Amino acid sequence: MSAIPKSFIERTSRLSDEVTRPFPGSRKVHVEGSRPDIRVGMREVALSDTPASFGAEKNAPLTIYDTSGPYTDPDAHIDLMAGLPRTREAWIEERGDTVVLDRPSSEYGRARLADSKLAALRFEHIQRPRRAVPGANVTQMHYARRGIVTPEMEYIAIRENLRREQVRDALLLAQHPGQSFGAAIPDRVTPEFVRDEVARGRAIIPANINHPELEPMVIGRNFLVKVNTNIGNSAVTSSIEEEVEKMVWSTRWGGDTLMDLSTGKNIHETREWIIRNSPVPIGTVPIYQALEKVGGKPEDLTWELFRDTLVEQAEQGVDYFTIHAGVRLAHVPLTAKRVTGIVSRGGSIMAKWCLAHHTESFLNTRFPEICEIMQAYDVSFSLGDGLRPGSVADANDEAQFAELRTLGELTGIAWEHDVQVMIEGPGHVPMQLIKENMERELEDCAEAPFYTLGPLTTDIAPGYDHITSAIGAAQIGWYGTAMLCYVTPKEHLGLPNKHDVREGIITYKIAAHAADLAKGHPGAQIRDNALSKARFEFRWEDQFNLGLDPERAREYHDETLPKESAKVAHFCSMCGPKFCSMKITQDVRDYAKARGIGRVQDAVQAGLDEKAEEFRRAGSEIYQRT
Amino acid sequence: MSAIPKSFIERTSRLSDEVTRPFPGSRKVHVEGSRPDIRVGMREVALSDTPASFGAEKNAPLTIYDTSGPYTDPDAHIDLMAGLPRTREAWIEERGDTVVLDRPSSEYGRARLADSKLAALRFEHIQRPRRAVPGANVTQMHYARRGIVTPEMEYIAIRENLRREQVRDALLLAQHPGQSFGAAIPDRVTPEFVRDEVARGRAIIPANINHPELEPMVIGRNFLVKVNTNIGNSAVTSSIEEEVEKMVWSTRWGGDTLMDLSTGKNIHETREWIIRNSPVPIGTVPIYQALEKVGGKPEDLTWELFRDTLVEQAEQGVDYFTIHAGVRLAHVPLTAKRVTGIVSRGGSIMAKWCLAHHTESFLNTRFPEICEIMQAYDVSFSLGDGLRPGSVADANDEAQFAELRTLGELTGIAWEHDVQVMIEGPGHVPMQLIKENMERELEDCAEAPFYTLGPLTTDIAPGYDHITSAIGAAQIGWYGTAMLCYVTPKEHLGLPNKHDVREGIITYKIAAHAADLAKGHPGAQIRDNALSKARFEFRWEDQFNLGLDPERAREYHDETLPKESAKVAHFCSMCGPKFCSMKITQDVRDYAKARGIGRVQDAVQAGLDEKAEEFRRAGSEIYQRT
Repeated sequence: MSAIPKSFIERTSRLSDEVTRPFPGSRKVHVEGSRPDIRVGMREVALSDTPASFGAEKNAPLTIYDTSGPYTDPDAHIDLMAGLPRTREAWIEERGDTVVLDRPSSEYGRARLADSKLAALRFEHIQRPRRAVPGANVTQMHYARRGIVTPEMEYIAIRENLRREQVRDALLLAQHPGQSFGAAIPDRVTPEFVRDEVARGRAIIPANINHPELEPMVIGRNFLVKVNTNIGNSAVTSSIEEEVEKMVWSTRWGGDTLMDLSTGKNIHETREWIIRNSPVPIGTVPIYQALEKVGGKPEDLTWELFRDTLVEQAEQGVDYFTIHAGVRLAHVPLTAKRVTGIVSRGGSIMAKWCLAHHTESFLNTRFPEICEIMQAYDVSFSLGDGLRPGSVADANDEAQFAELRTLGELTGIAWEHDVQVMIEGPGHVPMQLIKENMERELEDCAEAPFYTLGPLTTDIAPGYDHITSAIGAAQIGWYGTAMLCYVTPKEHLGLPNKHDVREGIITYKIAAHAADLAKGHPGAQIRDNALSKARFEFRWEDQFNLGLDPERAREYHDETLPKESAKVAHFCSMCGPKFCSMKITQDVRDYAKARGIGRVQDAVQAGLDEKAEEFRRAGSEIYQRT
Repeated sequence: MSAIPKSFIERTSRLSDEVTRPFPGSRKVHVEGSRPDIRVGMREVALSDTPASFGAEKNAPLTIYDTSGPYTDPDAHIDLMAGLPRTREAWIEERGDTVVLDRPSSEYGRARLADSKLAALRFEHIQRPRRAVPGANVTQMHYARRGIVTPEMEYIAIRENLRREQVRDALLLAQHPGQSFGAAIPDRVTPEFVRDEVARGRAIIPANINHPELEPMVIGRNFLVKVNTNIGNSAVTSSIEEEVEKMVWSTRWGGDTLMDLSTGKNIHETREWIIRNSPVPIGTVPIYQALEKVGGKPEDLTWELFRDTLVEQAEQGVDYFTIHAGVRLAHVPLTAKRVTGIVSRGGSIMAKWCLAHHTESFLNTRFPEICEIMQAYDVSFSLGDGLRPGSVADANDEAQFAELRTLGELTGIAWEHDVQVMIEGPGHVPMQLIKENMERELEDCAEAPFYTLGPLTTDIAPGYDHITSAIGAAQIGWYGTAMLCYVTPKEHLGLPNKHDVREGIITYKIAAHAADLAKGHPGAQIRDNALSKARFEFRWEDQFNLGLDPERAREYHDETLPKESAKVAHFCSMCGPKFCSMKITQDVRDYAKARGIGRVQDAVQAGLDEKAEEFRRAGSEIYQRT
């Protein structure tokens, strides 16, 4: 313990306090599966009763998909120094197809472990790495294709279903039909359905056997749309403490997965801290670290060095790797006439390598060997779109689609190895060109899950690119993208701070949820209905607590009407007490109900006029003051 | 002058300083029309030269549509106490179809003017009101239908065209084909085109003869998509000074029109201050003020009182009135089973009136008389959607569409009077149901311009409803909505402050521009291309200045790299100096150019390998440090 810098301990203690407090009105609940160690954490929001003036009824609590792991569970003991409980370890061991190694297989991993100068930075309880026994394949896809339902799959089925049965109110369950563009979302997710989707390659479960701390989740277009967040230091700024803080923060606001894109100092050690404390899958772009190892010169990269980096990271527990294997030599000149050329870091590194060596990159030529590494740890591919457009001008061009076709070919190779694959997508795309991206991806990549960055629908709003891209993300999510990579307000301008991370995640949770609604994901609308009912009935606290960011909602409300009494007031600051449409509606509703009138024609024919005078009298005092 | 409170003078002086400073790197330019008093203000952004490493070229300045009037013109003398110059007065007088009245025609207007207690609040230089001579019709639609091209129409044609001819770079002019859903946007807007669209009812020019200060603008789906902002005090909060400040602020960030939704004290005086200083059209919901006049009891509203309110406001210069004439008695019971009933303030007021009196509202029965008032001042209708859905659950229901059909019938009546009409639309609508809204509007309302509030695509994000709604606004704008009513982060929670207004407007400028791009509006992509080119070439200042919010972009950038030298650095904080994809792209481009290779196959066949060694050598120092 003494090796850990005091400043880190202080900082993480403070952090712990800030991020572990439960959301207001919420409690952590667990749904148990077929065995006691399958316990799926969810957030249950308690709702208050409907006031008498709106018909006095009980409102059942609402259960919400929860990515925050134990951090929002007051019963959990959080110790960032020790890492999260290794729940999946038993599941992995039971399968009997892995061994625990004596030491890291990668040279670099061994060197870092042996370097005493790093002791002050190093996570204290590093476990020995686990790997498939020779000849074994330990991917979820491999199990799925052999008909096996893993505990991970069962966990996911419970998680995706939530606890819809809790909601008994028909009003809350009512939902508009979706338009799913070929997605086939079941009414109820079973473990077998999860298995079949994974076997088919239409969904992935990123879950490295060296990341037993994670809570399994699924990425596929027949499931809830997910959100990825990016963090990571750079040569210019940031620290381990900040990155761990951002990770916990990210899970609090709903980030489903997290990519550590560090390119600065102590990448290896930073990653260890993040993974050991992360309840969500962690992704990386291994070429970034490889480039650091050769002093930043792309042309000096070699297969051997890259291979060692993959093994190093796989043995730490990275759940998915972005691999830019689709950047082929012939594609590079296609970018020469673009407005913004190549904007992907990984893409530009590999393009430069290809030009310098005038040959296909080792990512491409060694792809089957990469698959063999992936299958030994169950690392999923996130096939990188190194040639994605960096401006609307470059959207949907020959370079982009040529690479996409290559990614489709690579998907086939990965699937031959039972390795899980998702496909990265753009980028900057104006609205009218978004749909083509999804259609081509499904066609060229055989329905492997699509994972897009935005897309940004215009280039003209630096400082607001979370919004330019949420517009595109919601659309492409609706069309079938399985996971949306968030964009923060700092995109193009700087590295996101904590505030930006929160802003980016909430923005993308909005896009993902809007997509779920549009696709007609069963039960998606329950939360909207519950929140709107609370809003209509002036249950302010319930409205806040059901929102994506209860703290922000409360804070904004309190700016104008800070008093506690205002939160039970039957009006609000926008209209004031005399202009409340909600109350008038209730008058209409009461009237209709009193008459037993369900349908319009009846109502009108029943002769509203006989009631007009009575209504006029009764209506003179319409505002309930508290 | 002494009657004006000192605090107001102090406050407006300070404001003046804050909002009149020109945007960085920009200057106000004017394009003159066929006569010297048609001078269309635009913002010209100067661009720096492309650095030598990226090919050393001049970048022509870019001209941007500008709603800020004289406020960002350092040559203009701003005096909020005196109001803006009355440029349109000459145009109106020339037409010879109006008279200047001795005093306000409305009782209420006369009473307010005579009330000495109000002297301290009153705008100092109130003009006598103008009205059509008996029997005359002074609407832009009336002129258009008689084949007349007004100065307003010419002004608009110049404004909508911008100065595209300035941009000579083919790269900047390149644009993706749009998908216009039946819109027919001309390559070049002529005054005659404006006239024809107005005559057809497919566009409106909100321009009251009593608002000669405004800079004419057009709302229609064959023009640029516009953004409306809402301000207004309520019984709970705000003041005249704040509202005027918000108006100027709104025009600074790009609000095309502005609605004053005040429901609190001194509505009449607040409005006068706003209109006299507003370069953009002002809209109101007259029923709000009428309700104030009867002490907040909807059932006490009368036609006579409402009529007086219309005349009062028309003579102050309000350019468009929201009139909820589509709320019919038979529609009201249709809302009884909704999750959120009636959420429009105006809608609920009229619904209550209808129930109380058991008859159609005077807005509906007196509609032709309202048209006669509108045509005497050229006030445009914004036919209110009093039954818009307030939750996604209620979207596209019978109540909403029944009202829309009624609005279509009323449009026909208005057009018989040559009165301009736009149609208000929802509200809360999940993505898959948005398109139907636009299609029905075009069908039911004979292509009158649609003007929607969002729509919000989910209900679950209070505090972020500018974003939930920007997703829907961009889509419906693409489908053909002519103007988007902004939503601020405070929606559902409180009244927007200055910060919220800016956030809401920029968000909606994004949605509107994304829609322009998607529709293929000629020249829309020029700004994206210019900004992306600047980004690629590390012209940081140009990137900021071309953005929708240059101040925010600069501020975010400076958080990580505050030094001035960083703004000419050829890398940025996200990737650091070693990971710059932009520079690598330039290497690729230089190489392709040096070889005169335009097409892929050529490039590959030309044998990149002969250059590989040379590239490897040259590439060892790729970062230009400044």
